Amino acid sequence: MSYKVPVGLSNKHVHLSQEDINILFGEGHELTAIKDLGQPGQFACDEKVDLVGPKRTIKGVRVLGPARKESQVEISLADGFTLGIENVPVKGSGSLDGTPGIKLVGPNGEVELKQGVIAAARHIHMHPKDAEEFGVKDKDMVKVKVEGERGLVFENVLIRVHETYALEFHVDVEEGNAAMIKNKQMLEVIK
Amino acid sequence: MSYKVPVGLSNKHVHLSQEDINILFGEGHELTAIKDLGQPGQFACDEKVDLVGPKRTIKGVRVLGPARKESQVEISLADGFTLGIENVPVKGSGSLDGTPGIKLVGPNGEVELKQGVIAAARHIHMHPKDAEEFGVKDKDMVKVKVEGERGLVFENVLIRVHETYALEFHVDVEEGNAAMIKNKQMLEVIK
Repeated sequence: MSYKVPVGLSNKHVHLSQEDINILFGEGHELTAIKDLGQPGQFACDEKVDLVGPKRTIKGVRVLGPARKESQVEISLADGFTLGIENVPVKGSGSLDGTPGIKLVGPNGEVELKQGVIAAARHIHMHPKDAEEFGVKDKDMVKVKVEGERGLVFENVLIRVHETYALEFHVDVEEGNAAMIKNKQMLEVIK
Repeated sequence: MSYKVPVGLSNKHVHLSQEDINILFGEGHELTAIKDLGQPGQFACDEKVDLVGPKRTIKGVRVLGPARKESQVEISLADGFTLGIENVPVKGSGSLDGTPGIKLVGPNGEVELKQGVIAAARHIHMHPKDAEEFGVKDKDMVKVKVEGERGLVFENVLIRVHETYALEFHVDVEEGNAAMIKNKQMLEVIK
């Protein structure tokens, strides 16, 4: 049986703890939502921060809300090269132990993160009813097939199931460009 | 039967005609080789040019030698986005009809290319003796498998056979990062 998932491309972005929001944007600051994202309750913010790496700075990186327990910086391997952070670890969101740190600069102050820089491991968000329909469960690994000029098969795609999730296949910009896929394009999942 | 090919990662670069070299670097200028490349006779040059797109400029892009019949600019899809050239065509080297143009700026002058901007289609260079051993021929399409965290299978990989070629699988930086592969890493070819 074949089923399909819509693509969600992730450009570099930052998730912040409320503690770090207070330092970067001012005590008690609340993030300003400007656009809803594919996952319910998640949103792009008006706020941006600069990433100051050992080698160079990337200015104006978008903050995503809402606030999280721990700040997390999601970049591509190419961004890591620009910043001077080699071998950015490919990790699931929230798996930050042992990951590199970085300095964040906002309009009100700076935060020196001890850890939190990752390249997000590609994954498929789905609601339990999708998981049941597709016959997969949380933490399963599947493949995703892309047709066309830059056709390829992504292996090691992690299934993440939660009641708050909407069906979406998350890859970063480099993975998206390598396969020449667009946001919302439907791709076939292979078990 | 399984066989393997070494990876050659291509960052953005420019090939120039002698006519354009004369304009950009001065009449009768000869390219200065600073490093041999994986393909015999091909070399990285000391010379660099700026790419001036409709939206932004990318400064200091490496010229590769020797001079060619027609100038050609090889960039990633992300570079195209930076420059303001959307939908950079994925093409084989030298297939430039109908491709976007761009302005090149060198220390001695500027050239307005009418065409020549491509993202290089992934391909495997090989000598006729490799082709015979592997049981493939020029223009065949194969797959290349990558193991590991970002494991995937590249489909639509073009075989290019010529007596001047050395065995090498060429992908651009985004394809390389999407699969987390390194220069000279050996990958399995699937027919």
